[in-house]
Amino acid sequence: MDVQLTRDVQSDDPQRVEALVASTGFFSPQETAIARELVETRLEQGLASGYAFAWARQGSELIGYACWGEIPCTEGRYDLYWIAVAQTCQRHGLGRRLLRFAEQEVRRAGGVRMYVDTSDRAQYASTRAFYERAGYSVAASLPDFYRDGDGKVIFVRELNVTANERA
Amino acid sequence: MDVQLTRDVQSDDPQRVEALVASTGFFSPQETAIARELVETRLEQGLASGYAFAWARQGSELIGYACWGEIPCTEGRYDLYWIAVAQTCQRHGLGRRLLRFAEQEVRRAGGVRMYVDTSDRAQYASTRAFYERAGYSVAASLPDFYRDGDGKVIFVRELNVTANERA
Repeated sequence: MDVQLTRDVQSDDPQRVEALVASTGFFSPQETAIARELVETRLEQGLASGYAFAWARQGSELIGYACWGEIPCTEGRYDLYWIAVAQTCQRHGLGRRLLRFAEQEVRRAGGVRMYVDTSDRAQYASTRAFYERAGYSVAASLPDFYRDGDGKVIFVRELNVTANERA
Repeated sequence: MDVQLTRDVQSDDPQRVEALVASTGFFSPQETAIARELVETRLEQGLASGYAFAWARQGSELIGYACWGEIPCTEGRYDLYWIAVAQTCQRHGLGRRLLRFAEQEVRRAGGVRMYVDTSDRAQYASTRAFYERAGYSVAASLPDFYRDGDGKVIFVRELNVTANERA
């Protein structure tokens, strides 16, 4: 897929992110609203927001993005808040490219570790497999964290080892 | 200790919280700044901030407080963000009273579970013992989460069981 990834946030990105995230059918309205809010906060506060982004665009259309930031009160530990790829563009490695881009940016900023929270529900089996294939391992499981029957799984990857990098 | 706990935030509370938290000698400048910011956010946004508080005052002096809120995208899961008690007022059960007050408020709001993050460092042994005595158990441990040698311990307590309540 011939798409360049970029860092710059555009003024229409809150709406684009909301539409993209909603279109995946994967996230609740509350989660979709939060995805949008992170972009708005970044537009208002700039880098001081603590939110960094990678964007995959085709023309004016947003087909994928990632959002991450340093976890407050940690030394170089980052959280990957969001990765979303438009359904029509999935299965072409764009999610992996966004993830690797985020990791590179974190390394460049001196970060050493990336955390990702996801769900233990069956719906998220492919999401968990995505992170495992990308070199992430389960750091902790919190059953019923989000609600009964919907637990949190925390994945982690050390970023200071370049040997196990797969592009 | 003859202190009534109250819920109302006062305009001077950001400074009072900063001074109290700093005086414990337990928290980093970054953590102290965050403690203050939560109060400021509450003053600006009211209950929409998602931050609730309990205050222990002696005259105009703040001798202890707790701060908690519902975890976004969960159903009735709450996080206890802060408990701090002035050093001169410790060992009189005020921390336990603030904790129980917070739990009661969470129950009243329909919450079912309280999470607390703390550190696995030796300095926090008394903090971890405090939560264990209060009915909390370790839900997860994340070694080196904050920095090398400083991991996160996540405690949890189910709030829908009243049988094991100890005042």
